[in-house]
Amino acid sequence: MRIDVLSIFPNMFAPMRESIIGKTVERGLVDFNVVDFRDYTNNRHNNVDDVVYGGGQGMLLTPQPIFDAMDHVKESAGDFGRVILLDPAGKPFNQKMAEELAQEEHLTFIAGHYEGYDERIRTLVTDEISLGDFVLTGGELGAMVVIDATVRLLEDALGDDMSAVDDSFSTGLLEYPQYTRPADFRGMLVPDVLMSGHHGNIAIWRKKESLRRTYLRRPDLLEHYNFTKEERQLLREVVDEEASHDSEN
Amino acid sequence: MRIDVLSIFPNMFAPMRESIIGKTVERGLVDFNVVDFRDYTNNRHNNVDDVVYGGGQGMLLTPQPIFDAMDHVKESAGDFGRVILLDPAGKPFNQKMAEELAQEEHLTFIAGHYEGYDERIRTLVTDEISLGDFVLTGGELGAMVVIDATVRLLEDALGDDMSAVDDSFSTGLLEYPQYTRPADFRGMLVPDVLMSGHHGNIAIWRKKESLRRTYLRRPDLLEHYNFTKEERQLLREVVDEEASHDSEN
Repeated sequence: MRIDVLSIFPNMFAPMRESIIGKTVERGLVDFNVVDFRDYTNNRHNNVDDVVYGGGQGMLLTPQPIFDAMDHVKESAGDFGRVILLDPAGKPFNQKMAEELAQEEHLTFIAGHYEGYDERIRTLVTDEISLGDFVLTGGELGAMVVIDATVRLLEDALGDDMSAVDDSFSTGLLEYPQYTRPADFRGMLVPDVLMSGHHGNIAIWRKKESLRRTYLRRPDLLEHYNFTKEERQLLREVVDEEASHDSEN
Repeated sequence: MRIDVLSIFPNMFAPMRESIIGKTVERGLVDFNVVDFRDYTNNRHNNVDDVVYGGGQGMLLTPQPIFDAMDHVKESAGDFGRVILLDPAGKPFNQKMAEELAQEEHLTFIAGHYEGYDERIRTLVTDEISLGDFVLTGGELGAMVVIDATVRLLEDALGDDMSAVDDSFSTGLLEYPQYTRPADFRGMLVPDVLMSGHHGNIAIWRKKESLRRTYLRRPDLLEHYNFTKEERQLLREVVDEEASHDSEN
């Protein structure tokens, strides 16, 4: 996969050289490039922004440097692939979008900073993506989040120790509580069932606690979940237990 | 504000030394520290993770290094402040949470990587936050997103050129289209009204286009919006225009 990011803060992309994502780049699974679009300005002061037509506070990213930087990407890659603009007015990002982007051969991200985009920049764009209902100082962190969520899904991106299959949102439920050594840490104990070696009981406990956590924290996820008969019964037990727990308090 | 982040990838936090957030650190508005909890392991190999009780793929972050690193933060700062765990099972992050966190004097983030957390680590935590319904390779990018959204709201964080007030989500509507120079870029023109100098017409156009974008992209935001009488009328016009536009196609 080739990934280009247009940004005037290339140093912000250090996280893409670390850890799992960094390794996919080292191993040649991902060809990652940051294009500083300030290098493409054709004005004397290398300005990338200008005042807003019609008045108003702040500055806007002007189209020229971004269009010229995009021309450069197209020349070098042969195409833009999907062109993603990070913007609070975009479509909220989710795991399904990551799965979809992971199928592409070339992604180009436009990461603005501080201020808005001149509307004409959106004509270059195939996907406007928002991380969520909050405002950031720029699109760089958002681009990195989308890249991280996407690249980890590429075949061979995760090592043998890890798995993209068991995650929250892959199963449709939140993950059950997990424990590692020591069995007693500062007086806090690992639940007996997990130390029992009884695989059937462990599987039931995990399913039930996964349902409990989802029921308590994200009941919206249960609305679209395809329950087995056993899961329905476990959820009933959870609902009863939580109701009696509440009435005790 | 003091911010501590527990992470085994301190180099990933380079974005916090750049741009607006970097300037708040330089100017002393924010005291930002990354604590590498691998430095606090008490085993020979400096392992921060271990196998899962009850079986299963992958490794879990073990409690000891994180608890000891937290003891260090408490010693150095006098308290933990709010302790935020980045986790897909957390509460989805939004602008209101950023506004709330911006009132705090001390935030401590626990950013895990690869795998899950031993459940006992959650006993240290006051807030579990999720960026959204997607999975990342670690909590570092999530922590930086939360920090960026929060720190930009601190008094004096944004320069005179910028404003946190006019943003999408601050008004409850998506932002209207904006334009800067040149008036004609590769044949794409700025709307006449914005060049007219007529402030009343410009304000109405912007309000209407803000309503249009919200209606087309995020109608859910309109459900909770407090309309003025004028805004109701503008929305009616938008709905009619979009309906006739659709029937033309």
